[in-house]
This record gives sequence, structure tokens and C-alpha cells, in this order.
Amino acid sequence: MAVRSVETASDSGLLSFEDLRAQLRAVGEERYHHQHPFHLMMHEGRLNRGQLQAWALNRYYYQSIIPIKDSIILSRGPDPAFRRAWRKRVVDHDGDATSDGGIKRWLRLAEATGLSADQVRAGTGILPATRFAVNEYLNIVRTRTLLEAVASSLTELFSRDLISLRMEKLRQHYPWLSGGLDYFEARLTQAPEDAKFAIDYVFENAATRAEQELAIQALRDKCDILWAQLDALYFAYVQPGWPPPGAFRIGAVPISAVPIGAVPTKEEGV
Amino acid sequence: MAVRSVETASDSGLLSFEDLRAQLRAVGEERYHHQHPFHLMMHEGRLNRGQLQAWALNRYYYQSIIPIKDSIILSRGPDPAFRRAWRKRVVDHDGDATSDGGIKRWLRLAEATGLSADQVRAGTGILPATRFAVNEYLNIVRTRTLLEAVASSLTELFSRDLISLRMEKLRQHYPWLSGGLDYFEARLTQAPEDAKFAIDYVFENAATRAEQELAIQALRDKCDILWAQLDALYFAYVQPGWPPPGAFRIGAVPISAVPIGAVPTKEEGV
Repeated sequence: MAVRSVETASDSGLLSFEDLRAQLRAVGEERYHHQHPFHLMMHEGRLNRGQLQAWALNRYYYQSIIPIKDSIILSRGPDPAFRRAWRKRVVDHDGDATSDGGIKRWLRLAEATGLSADQVRAGTGILPATRFAVNEYLNIVRTRTLLEAVASSLTELFSRDLISLRMEKLRQHYPWLSGGLDYFEARLTQAPEDAKFAIDYVFENAATRAEQELAIQALRDKCDILWAQLDALYFAYVQPGWPPPGAFRIGAVPISAVPIGAVPTKEEGV
Repeated sequence: MAVRSVETASDSGLLSFEDLRAQLRAVGEERYHHQHPFHLMMHEGRLNRGQLQAWALNRYYYQSIIPIKDSIILSRGPDPAFRRAWRKRVVDHDGDATSDGGIKRWLRLAEATGLSADQVRAGTGILPATRFAVNEYLNIVRTRTLLEAVASSLTELFSRDLISLRMEKLRQHYPWLSGGLDYFEARLTQAPEDAKFAIDYVFENAATRAEQELAIQALRDKCDILWAQLDALYFAYVQPGWPPPGAFRIGAVPISAVPIGAVPTKEEGV
């Protein structure tokens, strides 16, 4: 597909590719969760092991629905070429004969925090607010246009920088987590590939300025979904809120899979 | 429909009506938002006007989807007698030739806090977490069985006591709100009628113990939806969290419709 010329774009009120990308990036600057205080604390080494468990447990629910979300998008794409390209995402997360996939890799990260994979997979104790936010991602890809569904994935434009920083900081501050970082390693290359396809798709398929604005709004809404998950974690597990009835309580579950001596004493407390 | 006999209930493992009601009430004791700290502060007169505005604004989104939720349930009820009974709920909230309905009444409450009805209706600044929690209520009534959809309304078993207390406490601590309490007045009689129909329906239509358990779980999930809304308000507007990007900020919007002198000075601050 040919890239729209600058003339065409300005004549019709459409944003050029560069302007569209700039507006999408501005959404990320304002709303992406890279600047959420929960992440800032993580990167400064100020989270304890229980808080990292709560993060790994809750974020697992998000990870687990990603290939469901992408399967919904697959089911809505009328074009075989589009589906062939998008299918990669389902493989990336569910795995195939040669690769474990992102969900299993996230379970290994959760195990590195000291949770058992069975416990995380069962989802017991996940914050209701996590479920509500993540389920909204499914609502978006089910009920909005395919263009908006694709655009909602564009947080991947911003994820490589955050993941690079996170890997460095997790290794530095929580060396006992180092064996669980395969998920992030894989995303360093997967996310930018996916983001490139998605932004090209959005530019090629938004026929009007109004459609471009809907795509930008979908990205804004997706950022809110990520941000709300960290708000809920911060409130329930950092200070001075409380986990809601029935949610994971730090220290109240059996800790497994942490070799004795692997966890610095200072990380043990809540 | 005849009420199941005690013999039938125990022979099949089904809970009797009394035991089912007791289990539903136990869910309320554990999870209903009557004991959420945001409500406790409200009832102790410890919320300021800005915090009550944030509550009225966000809760409006919940109010606004109630007749949509009930219309989905209407659309799933194959029995004309059921639909005739359930239709009352849509009328209660949307109004008719003789009554304003609950949505308009809630707008009057929001106006009594100092917000404009237009601003509240537009929904600008509603917390994303509010939308996610409330939209999950729509997910439940769309995707679960009709039995579970009906059971999710059973928080009305508990609402009269909370509303009675709230009206008393709002009048006592926030007398400038007294002109906006018609919504609650109407719910004092509507909610118990609705709860009676719904609990009878659940008992008559849950054919197995497993179905009864699903109904109880639907009530648990509904309680979580209400609780999460107050968690989000507490975190964003009480202390020491922050509203997410784009959300309502106390004091940052024009305050209208508050007669000069009607608002005690001590309520003005944030």
C-alpha cells in the first residue's frame, strides 16, 4: 500500500503520517504507564518482594488475555493478508513447537518472585480492578471498529524503552528476579515489529480525520487501561490503601520456588 | 410458581430459600460497599465538597448505565411476565410521563454538590476505573446466564439500610445537599420491591446447587464492582493518591448552582 502524500493528507484535513505519529507519541507522553509511580518505585528498587508478587500476579491476568484480544481482532479482519500478519501476535504469546510463548514466560517471572505457577494461573486473589480494566480491553476490540481495535495496540510504540529500562533496573535492584526476565527479552524485538505494522495499518486505513481521531482516542483509552492497573496495585499494596475483600494479601500465601539465600533479607518484609 | 419444599431442597443438595438468602446476605456482609472507608468518611461528615462532587460525578456513570443493564436483561428474558415485571426498573430510572426517573434525580444531586448537569451528563473527567468497573456490570448481564444476570442485581437486598443511613447523615453533615436527595427517597421503596422479585426469581430458577452457587458468585462479583468504584474515588480524591491523566480535578472546574452562603466555608477546601 502506498503511503499517502503530504498533499493528499493536508487537502483532506487528514494528518500526515508524521503528524499522526507525533500525536500518538504525545498521547504516550501524557498517559503511558512509564511514568506511573508504581513503575518509578520499581525502577528505584523501592518495591519489596510481596509488592512484586502482587504485580506479577495481577499483570498475569493482562498477559493471559492478550492472545484472546488478538484472536478477536483476527476474527474481525476480513483480509487474509492482515490475518496472516496479525496471527504472529497470538503465536508470540501462546507459543508454538519451537517457543514457549509470552504467557509461559510471564509465569516464569511470577515464579521468580516466589509465587507458584499454579496459583498464578488460577488467578485467585487478582484485584477486581485488574479484571475490570483488562476486560475493558476486550470490550474495545469487540465493539469498536477494526481500525480502533488495531490502534489500541499502539502502546507498543512506547514499550521497548520501558522494557529496556525495566530489565536493567530489575537486574540491578532485584537480582533474585534475573532468571525470570525472558518475557521482556522477547518483547524487545516483538513489540517494535508489531507497532510498525499497526501504525502503518492505522495510517493506511483511517480514511478521514475523524477516523484518525478515533484511533488516537483508542490509544488514549488503552493507556488508561494500563494506568488503572497500576493505580489499583499502588492503592492495595503500596500505601496506605487496602486490598479489597478476597484479594491477594502479601505474605498470606505459600511462597515457593525461591531458593534459600536467593532473596535478600531486606526484600522479605512487606 | 410454588416455593420449593424443604424436602425437595435438601434431597437434591439445593439450598432452601432461607439458606440461599442467608448465603446471599453473608456475601453482603463481607463485600457490600456499606463498609467501604469512603462511605464511612461520608457518613462521619469527613468528606469535603470537592470529594462529594467527585463521588456524584463518577457515580452518575453507574446510574446512567442501570437502565441499559436492565434493558439487556429485558432483551434476554423469554417470558412476557418476566419482562413485564423487570420493565419497571427501566421506568424507575428513565422516567415516564408522571415521573422524572432516577437518572434525572441523580443529576439534581450532582447539581446540589455544585456541578452543572451538562458537565455531569457529558462525563468529562470520570475516572477510567469507574468506567471499567461499571462496564463489567454490562459484561456480566450480557455474557452470563439470565439467572446470574438477575442475581447480580441482588445488592438491592442491602441498599435500603445503606440509603436510610446515608440520607440521615447527608442531611446532618452536608445540609447544603438536602435539596438533592430525591433519588434516595425513591430508592427506599423501589429497591426492596426489586430485590424481592429478584431473590424469588433466583430461588425458583436455580435448578441445581451449582446454579445457586453461580448466582451467589454473581452477587459477589457485583459487590466487587461497587467496591472498586469507591476504591478508585478514595485513591484519586481522598489521600494520598492522584487522579489519573485527564480525570476530574477538585476545584479545577467551574462550580455552578450553589447559592451563595449555602455552602459552609469548612466544606470549600480540598
